[in-house]
Amino acid sequence: MSEKRIMVIGGGPAGLEASRGIVELGYELVLVEHLEELGGSPISADYAALTPDMEDTGVAMARMVDAVVGNENADIRLSSSIASVEGSAPNFRVTVESGGESEVVEVGSIIVATGFKHFDPGRETQRYGYYEFDDVITLIDAERMLKGGGFVRPSTGEPPKTVCFIQCVGSRDRQIGNQWCSKVCCGVATKEAIEIKHLLPECRVIVFYIDMRVYGFWEDQLYWKAQEEHHVNFIRGIISEVTKRGDTVVVKGEDTTMGRPMEVPMDVVILSVGMEPSDGTLAMAEMLGLPLECHGWIETIDGALNTVQTPVDGVFVAGAAAGPADLEDSISMGGAAALKACSFVRRTSLPTI
Amino acid sequence: MSEKRIMVIGGGPAGLEASRGIVELGYELVLVEHLEELGGSPISADYAALTPDMEDTGVAMARMVDAVVGNENADIRLSSSIASVEGSAPNFRVTVESGGESEVVEVGSIIVATGFKHFDPGRETQRYGYYEFDDVITLIDAERMLKGGGFVRPSTGEPPKTVCFIQCVGSRDRQIGNQWCSKVCCGVATKEAIEIKHLLPECRVIVFYIDMRVYGFWEDQLYWKAQEEHHVNFIRGIISEVTKRGDTVVVKGEDTTMGRPMEVPMDVVILSVGMEPSDGTLAMAEMLGLPLECHGWIETIDGALNTVQTPVDGVFVAGAAAGPADLEDSISMGGAAALKACSFVRRTSLPTI
Repeated sequence: MSEKRIMVIGGGPAGLEASRGIVELGYELVLVEHLEELGGSPISADYAALTPDMEDTGVAMARMVDAVVGNENADIRLSSSIASVEGSAPNFRVTVESGGESEVVEVGSIIVATGFKHFDPGRETQRYGYYEFDDVITLIDAERMLKGGGFVRPSTGEPPKTVCFIQCVGSRDRQIGNQWCSKVCCGVATKEAIEIKHLLPECRVIVFYIDMRVYGFWEDQLYWKAQEEHHVNFIRGIISEVTKRGDTVVVKGEDTTMGRPMEVPMDVVILSVGMEPSDGTLAMAEMLGLPLECHGWIETIDGALNTVQTPVDGVFVAGAAAGPADLEDSISMGGAAALKACSFVRRTSLPTI
Repeated sequence: MSEKRIMVIGGGPAGLEASRGIVELGYELVLVEHLEELGGSPISADYAALTPDMEDTGVAMARMVDAVVGNENADIRLSSSIASVEGSAPNFRVTVESGGESEVVEVGSIIVATGFKHFDPGRETQRYGYYEFDDVITLIDAERMLKGGGFVRPSTGEPPKTVCFIQCVGSRDRQIGNQWCSKVCCGVATKEAIEIKHLLPECRVIVFYIDMRVYGFWEDQLYWKAQEEHHVNFIRGIISEVTKRGDTVVVKGEDTTMGRPMEVPMDVVILSVGMEPSDGTLAMAEMLGLPLECHGWIETIDGALNTVQTPVDGVFVAGAAAGPADLEDSISMGGAAALKACSFVRRTSLPTI
């Protein structure tokens, strides 16, 4: 095959699916991952189980990694970063740095799959006391505990009797500049609530929410299941503050269904933090000259009818680098971006008449 | 190219994107559409503008159609249906019927993109009076009016002074057997509410909802915009019944935020009907031996990590045939399915050693 190679930047779900697509179609791949392991956030942030299937994350992601690693068309660079990009499609010259060495790699097309980062609740949402109280944690901290096979109150190491989730931390919030809904947090919180009830059937688990956005099949797969089989409570409410009384954190706000203020002591408070563009996503946008859409994520062209094509010739985007995305979004976009990148390098290698 | 042809069944957004992907990669396509025009539901159901971009549907879908029609690798069969499928991958023999003639078409792989149908509100939700009152219409009836450039009260032909949407009709409903959330109705209703306010700035427009599932960028692109720029009211409430008093329909239910019963006269009531598997989707599942997942849509394998692959070798699914899908989902899945189908026919045409 005479087509130029395709570079995928980022080895999470979107990047891995794009990579699999490229090599299975017989095209040549260079996959660059800045961490020392493939798998993206599900692996690096120690997710316990995937949403909504609850399959073990390690097992599921290993299947994706195995589909790429060892393929004769795959050149995989771990612990590597992009120092610069020169030229334009189909003649990109990408400087890849790894362990102090740098190498110029020539590719015909680039797929940016650099994903998101988790919102830091120590910023403008410090009213929830994340950096102040041990028993206030995030969805990601909870995943890590669940992955370890247990769930305890951090300040005591004992099983909690009451746990609550506060939704939309760092999302749907004009004040902090994150106007978007992060799409997955309602589903992930519901999944974690079920996992906690599995481990601690006697624990009272509450989810405080504005709208439960458990769309599609998540409705009954997660939301109904949590309520009916696991007796998780979902309370529509606005949480204004988390404080402390003695050794216990106290959640203050308003139950908007009952129309009354509430003040609930909790053993553990879990902040459902949303997504922001990752540092890698912003760096690649800058380096490749990719415009950002109005929320600050990588822009695609043609609105809803073209989910992976950027305005820069030969550069495609997949997964949460283009905005909040669930796993299905990332996987479908990974495949779609691989298809367009393969078509692109094929077209540019055809003899001109 | 010696690879076998790929058949795409269904010429809506997912099928068109899959088709574009196949021909742009140099593979050969047979696209079968049962209607006489390509474009799928956005065209056949006369959508006015797409969600969320509000681009004119005709213009947007024409761009997708033009990317396929006229390509030398595209064999497009309009007004055609699938009578039977024999054999198995990569040697499917598909009998295509058109205008009384039938022809056996040999293909190596099949992509099912047969989509959804709109829930019929005359079924178990007849308490909303769709077939009883002229002024009770559906999201689709409203699209059709908006496409015509106006919006009137059907019983009088005059501009309405009050319009409301009732969300989740035929969705999230155990009683009628549709447990899923249809994903797009919150966004589509919000878009239509904005369009109505554009035409009739003095009209009062209310959306009665359970949870506003305007996920991702729809949050501020549609939901905030509707409230802040167009003064659409969103009221969390359960609507139990639509009746009539004199010439006016009356919406009865409970405002769950205020905790009180409500009874609101309305000039026009719009039922936000959800998605169900289309007849074509069920017929293709039967014909190809595709298992249905627990809600009755075409099943894919590997949960969230494989959105387009069915358990049947060489058969892929894209768009709403696999469950409620927004336009972005359908487009990404179309690309992803095309990639897998091309890989499949390529692999099965490689010489065995």
